[in-house]
This record gives sequence, structure tokens and C-alpha cells, in this order.
Amino acid sequence: MTAIKSYIEEKRTMFESYLLQRVEALQAPAPLKESMAYSLRAGGKRIRPMLLFAALETYGKEAEKGLDSACALEMIHTYSLIHDDLPAMDDDDLRRGKPTNHKVFGEATAILAGDALLTFAFELIASSTAHSPEQSVKLIRMLASAAGPEGMVGGQMADMAGEQKTLTLPELEYIHLHKTGRLLAFSVMAGAFIGGADERETSLLEKYARHIGLAFQIRDDILDVEGTEEEIGKPVGSDESNDKSTYPSLLSMNGAKEKLTEELNGAHEALAALGRPAPLLEAFANLIAERTA
Amino acid sequence: MTAIKSYIEEKRTMFESYLLQRVEALQAPAPLKESMAYSLRAGGKRIRPMLLFAALETYGKEAEKGLDSACALEMIHTYSLIHDDLPAMDDDDLRRGKPTNHKVFGEATAILAGDALLTFAFELIASSTAHSPEQSVKLIRMLASAAGPEGMVGGQMADMAGEQKTLTLPELEYIHLHKTGRLLAFSVMAGAFIGGADERETSLLEKYARHIGLAFQIRDDILDVEGTEEEIGKPVGSDESNDKSTYPSLLSMNGAKEKLTEELNGAHEALAALGRPAPLLEAFANLIAERTA
Repeated sequence: MTAIKSYIEEKRTMFESYLLQRVEALQAPAPLKESMAYSLRAGGKRIRPMLLFAALETYGKEAEKGLDSACALEMIHTYSLIHDDLPAMDDDDLRRGKPTNHKVFGEATAILAGDALLTFAFELIASSTAHSPEQSVKLIRMLASAAGPEGMVGGQMADMAGEQKTLTLPELEYIHLHKTGRLLAFSVMAGAFIGGADERETSLLEKYARHIGLAFQIRDDILDVEGTEEEIGKPVGSDESNDKSTYPSLLSMNGAKEKLTEELNGAHEALAALGRPAPLLEAFANLIAERTA
Repeated sequence: MTAIKSYIEEKRTMFESYLLQRVEALQAPAPLKESMAYSLRAGGKRIRPMLLFAALETYGKEAEKGLDSACALEMIHTYSLIHDDLPAMDDDDLRRGKPTNHKVFGEATAILAGDALLTFAFELIASSTAHSPEQSVKLIRMLASAAGPEGMVGGQMADMAGEQKTLTLPELEYIHLHKTGRLLAFSVMAGAFIGGADERETSLLEKYARHIGLAFQIRDDILDVEGTEEEIGKPVGSDESNDKSTYPSLLSMNGAKEKLTEELNGAHEALAALGRPAPLLEAFANLIAERTA
């Protein structure tokens, strides 16, 4: 196993146990907690929390210092998947090869579980003892901005509005930079912020995060064409059959792969300018660009 | 016009203009902003923000100091109405006599507008300059707890689970204390907290808020039987035709009216023990118990 994979393995176990414990401890109706835990448990590679930890370690801090922020981040990512899968939105029956939340718990509970995860995320940061009140307020401001109408929710809205029409490349990038990019950027920037990065470094890491966010999405689009259903946990070719604009559809498959390489190079350049070793963040960029699932 | 009504009139104008201005200023897709603003504009008496202002003034502070928290509160209340009205939840076509959000903007946009309001609420408090970082963090913790799985969302879940069966009085009170009570309590406690109330006073005001919260709900149930459609903006008798457990159905109409009086007395007793004049909060309690809409 490579160093990055064993790093992820180790932190993921620690992270997932804390994440589920926080939901388990809630004084709330059982079906609500079960529905929240179901989707949290169905999580994949935990890429956002891992990026937060990796950024923290780049500044010589323990992953544990970012645990509450990482849980908040994963809860917000998870709520967005639950709501996106609803019949009124993408109407998906499967997510990572398992029935989606509303398929198991019904639509009403799925809506409420999403609302509960989103709300509880902010409580987690606000009640964390890992940072000062000044830091907590700044983290909440960053997270709400990344997840809200000017961030993820705005991106999702633009994505819906853009369905079944051919987008321009700038329109496609607006969607990805908001729908997935802002939360990925928060992962890196929150870790750097808690770790004590200065403004110049934070801006370089934002650039890094922006590049890996786009790389992540381009790789997603490529996998939808070239991956196998077993690998990606959903039907292959769903973008094409949904008439969705993607990097391969706008740039051709070769063009998309070139763009993926460009974004990956951009990420590495930002790290190189950082002036401190960042082996975990380097490895993450490569992992994202090469992933098969 | 009574003093309390002219107080509400004056503060409401100031409040609503600030509230809509904050949404107008967002850099987000136009349909999302329109959907958010539509439901914010359809607001009724703004009872939660007004309670926050009244609690602040009880401590000699200007309403303006609570403006960001009041907007956050109203956004969270509004998101909960949008999601509650969805076809998968209560499936309501009308809210305060106007078409519900999903009837105008479609279900997907309504879900996202709710998510956006909930998320932006926390950003508003976290970016407020009206209080210190310590105060902001505490307000966010209080609000997230009141609105999340241990508060409003938990109450909504219990409400759904209790539909079409006869509830016991404790079960009915659990639902109301969570579904509507926690956010009403936050209104009063946030105002008191920003105003500088000590622990003894905060606990008395929490008691006050608990009583007016139940009084509000009992009055709601009574109006559903005795009100007119024109007054309450939705069909009269909908609780009975939905087989919903209510105070009149569990206690008889006379019993419900007695309980309303008890709760009102409890609210006034809590205020009397406060040891400082609280004419606005007294007037609010009476207003809630006597309202006809």
C-alpha cells in the first residue's frame, strides 16, 4: 500500500467512528437518527475530511484538531447527496451501489435527515473545543459561504437550470466550481486555517483546491464514459443518456484528458510555490486525477 | 392602535427591509434568490424576530443589535415552512392564503431555497458585527440546537410519525415543544443573551418562552376549529379531517381553553419573577393567547 493509502486508511477509521458516535449521541427520534446514520455510513473515500487533515498536517498539526470541522464538512456533503437524490431532483435509486436514503426511509424522512445533518454541522463547529471562538466563527462563515446560495446550493441550482441544454465551457465551470468546488476548497482552507497558514499560503491553497476540484469533476465525467458500473457504483453512460453537458461532450475525450492534466499541473504548481513540503496534498492531487471510482 | 401593535408595526418595517436586502445582495442564480425572497416576503406577523427585539429592549438595548440574529431566525422559520409544505411532507398548496413555494417555483427549487435559507442563516450570524466572536459562537450553538435534530427537525419527525394515530398529551407536548417551541424559545433567549441577561433571568425567560410556545400552539388548534378561513388563510377544520391529535381533540374545547389560560398565567408568572419591567414581553404573551389569525 502506498503511503497516502495507508494514511487514509488510518485516519478514516478514526474519523468514521467519531462521526457516527456524534449522531448516535443525539437525543432525537430514532428513525431520524437511523436515516442520518445510514447515509453517513454509506460514505465513500471521505475525500473532504482527508483533505482537511492533510492540510492540517502540512502545518504540523494533528488531524484530531480538525475532527469537528471534518465531521461538519462530511455532514454537509452527505445532506447534499440525500437532497440531490430525491425524486424532485435527480431521482436516483442508487448511490455508491446502495439504495438512496429516500428509497429506504421515504421522502419525508430523507428531507428531514438532510435538514438535520446541515443544521447539526454548524452546531458541531460552534461547540468544538478544538479552536478559539474567533476561529470557530471564521470556520462557520467559511463553511456557510461554501455550502450556501453563493456556493454549493447555487451550483446545484445552476446545474438543474442547465440540464437538457448544451452549456458553454464557462457555464460548466461555474457549476462545478460551485456545486463541488467550494466545499472541496473549504476542506483544504479549513485545515490550513486551523493549522495557522498566512494569507499568501491560504491563497495558494485555494488555488490548489480549485484545480483539484475541477480535476475531480473532469475525472468523474471521464469515468462515466470509460468506467465500469461495478467500479463507480452507478450505471455507466448516465450523463449521455441524460443529455448532460460534460467535459468529454464539450471538449472530446482527448480534450477532457488534456484538461485534466492541466488542472493536475496547476495544483502541483500551487503547492510548489507554498515553500514548505506538502507530500500528502501532492499525493491527494494525483489520487484524484487517477482514481477509478 | 395599542402600544404593542404600533411597536410591531415600526420594527417590522425596519426588519423586513433589512431581511430582503440581505437576500437581494446575494451573488446567486436569480431563480434561487426569487424563490427565497418569495417565501420571506410572504411572512406573517414576524413573531419570532419581534420577540427577540422585545427581549433585547427588556435589557435596554436597541432592536438593531439583534437584527442579524432576527434575520437568521426568520430564515430558519421560513425554510421549515417551505420544506413542510412539500408534497412529500404536508402537501399544502396554500400558506397564509398564497400559493406555497413549490407551487410557484417547483419542488426542486423549493427544496434548494429551503437549504439556502438554512445555510445562509448561520452565515448571517457568523458575519455579524453586532456582537463579539464569543457571543456569535454561542448564538450559533443555541440556534443550531433549537433548529436541528434535537429541536425543530426532531419535532417535525415526531409529528409525522404521530399522524393518523391518537397521541397522549405528553406525546403532543413533545411535538410542540420541539417543532415550534424551541425556535420560539430561541427568539426570547437570544434577545436576552445579547442584552446581557444573567443565568437566573435566562432560565426565567426560557420558562416564559416555553409557556407562550404552548399557548401559541393551543390557540392554533382552537382557531382551526373556531376561526374563519379568511382569518387564518387556510381551510378551517383541516386538523379534524386529517385525523390530527390536537388540544381540543384530547382535552375537549373547554379543556383546551383552560390549558391556554394556564400557559398564559405561567408566562406572566415567569415575567413577574424577573424583577425588571417587561411590558413588551407581557403584551406579546397576551397577543399570542388572543390572536385570531
